[in-house]
Amino acid sequence: MKNLAEINAKGIRDLIRKGKITNSTAGMAKGYAQANLVILKKEYAYDFLLFCQRNSKACPLLEVTDVGVYRSKKIARGADFRTDIPKYRIYRDGKLVEEATDIKEYWEDDMVCFLLGCSFTFENSLLNGGIPIRHIEENRNVPMYKTNIPCEQAGVFEGPMVVSMRPMRHEEAIRATQITTRFPAVHGAPIHVGDPSEIGITNLSKPDFGEEVSIKNGEIPVFWACGVTPQAVAMKSKPSIMITHAPGCMFISDIKDEELSVL
Amino acid sequence: MKNLAEINAKGIRDLIRKGKITNSTAGMAKGYAQANLVILKKEYAYDFLLFCQRNSKACPLLEVTDVGVYRSKKIARGADFRTDIPKYRIYRDGKLVEEATDIKEYWEDDMVCFLLGCSFTFENSLLNGGIPIRHIEENRNVPMYKTNIPCEQAGVFEGPMVVSMRPMRHEEAIRATQITTRFPAVHGAPIHVGDPSEIGITNLSKPDFGEEVSIKNGEIPVFWACGVTPQAVAMKSKPSIMITHAPGCMFISDIKDEELSVL
Repeated sequence: MKNLAEINAKGIRDLIRKGKITNSTAGMAKGYAQANLVILKKEYAYDFLLFCQRNSKACPLLEVTDVGVYRSKKIARGADFRTDIPKYRIYRDGKLVEEATDIKEYWEDDMVCFLLGCSFTFENSLLNGGIPIRHIEENRNVPMYKTNIPCEQAGVFEGPMVVSMRPMRHEEAIRATQITTRFPAVHGAPIHVGDPSEIGITNLSKPDFGEEVSIKNGEIPVFWACGVTPQAVAMKSKPSIMITHAPGCMFISDIKDEELSVL
Repeated sequence: MKNLAEINAKGIRDLIRKGKITNSTAGMAKGYAQANLVILKKEYAYDFLLFCQRNSKACPLLEVTDVGVYRSKKIARGADFRTDIPKYRIYRDGKLVEEATDIKEYWEDDMVCFLLGCSFTFENSLLNGGIPIRHIEENRNVPMYKTNIPCEQAGVFEGPMVVSMRPMRHEEAIRATQITTRFPAVHGAPIHVGDPSEIGITNLSKPDFGEEVSIKNGEIPVFWACGVTPQAVAMKSKPSIMITHAPGCMFISDIKDEELSVL
C-alpha cells in the first residue's frame, strides 16, 4: 500500500470505509485536518453544544450537523460520519459497551453529529518546524491522560479535561507553542509544559487513552487539550447513548491544515 | 465627569445602571473587552447557539448563561445583563418595537443571554498601533452595514452578515489586519478591504446601523464582521421575542482586551 501520509483525505476515507484501516490515523493524509466525533440524541444536543462553547480549548467545533443528518456539509462534503472513521466507541449510560468499525446499526433519526478539531492537524506543521512527533516515530497512538482540570459544566455534561502529550526538548517546546498558537480551531497552544503532577497526572507510562511513548533524556512532556475530553465527560454525565470515534482513530476532513490557521 | 476612557469597566457599568450613559460605548473603559447581547427564550436557544457556531466570525461567543440566569458568571461576575447596557432593543416577531435603558420588565424565566465579542475591543490595540478610529475622533457611533454575504442557516435563523467599517490608509489597513488577527474572539481580521459594492454595500454615507463617518482622501473602507448580525437575522427569522443591545451600546466586561488575544 502507498505510504498513507501521501494519500489524500478522500483516498484514506475510502480505505477506512472498506475496512482496510482500523487503527490510529496520526500522520495519514499529510496536510489535511483531522477531527474528533461525538454523536448524541437531540435531547442532549443543546447541553453538549453549550459544553463545547464553554470548553472551547478542549472542544473546538468544526461542524455540527442538522438533526438526523450523518453526512458532512462542510468539512468533507458528502462523507458519511457513520462509516468513514476507522473505529468507533459506543457508550450507554456512561459505560463503554462496544467498539465498532461502522455504526449504521446504531444510527437514530434524532441524532446530531459534532466534529471537533484534533491536534493531529498541527503535527504536520510541527514536523515542518523540525519538531519530532514521538508517537509517529514509534508508530503508536498518541498518549492521552485525564487531568485534574475540571471542565466548565453545561447542563448534564461535566468532567475532567483530557490532554494529549508529546515529549520534546525545552527549546522545541517554545517553538511548538509558537506553531500551535496559529491553530486555535484544533486546540491551539499547549495548556501545560513540564511537571505532569501539576495537572493531576501521576504516571506518564500509563496513559488513560492511546499508548505510552518514550521520553528521552533532556525531554519534557508538553500537553495539549484533547478532543477525547467528551469521552471522559460521557463517563461522568451518563447520556443514554453517545457514539464517538475511538481515541486516535479520527475523521480525516477535506480541509487543509492551513485553512484552520489564523496566521 | 472623568474621561470615560479612563474609568474601569465596573465604574462605567455603574454609570450605565444609574442612567448616566445612554449612548455608544466606543472608547470607554480603555483596555476592557466589550460585548454584544442577544436574549432569547429557551425554545430558540439551540438554533441560535448553532447559528453562532456556524457563523463564528460574526458571532464569536464569550458567554452563554444558563436558562433563567441574567447575571454574568464569566466575563463580569455578578453584573446584570438586564440593566448594565446603555440601551436595549426589543424585537417581536422580527420587528423592532421598542428601545429601553433597562429590560427588567421584559425578562422571563425561560430566557438565555448570549454575549458576543465586539470589535470595539480591538480598537485600543489599533490606536496603540497608530491607526486612527474615525468614529471615536468624530464622537459618533461606528457605521454598520448589511452585506450580501449570507450567514449559514441554523434552524429558524438565517440572514445577511452585518459589518462595521473603519476608514484608513492602505498601509494602515495592512497593519490593522495584523493587529486584529490576534483577536479571533472579537471578530478577528477584516472580512473585506476596499470596494464596498463587492459585499453589497451601495452607499457608505447611509449605514444601516450607527452613524456615518468621514472618509478622507487616500483612505479606503475596511470592514469587520459585526455582532449586530443577529439583529439583521432576527428581522428575517422572526422569533416571538428577542432582546438585544442597541447597536454601538455595548456591555463592557471585566475581561482585559489582551486576555482575548491569541498572541
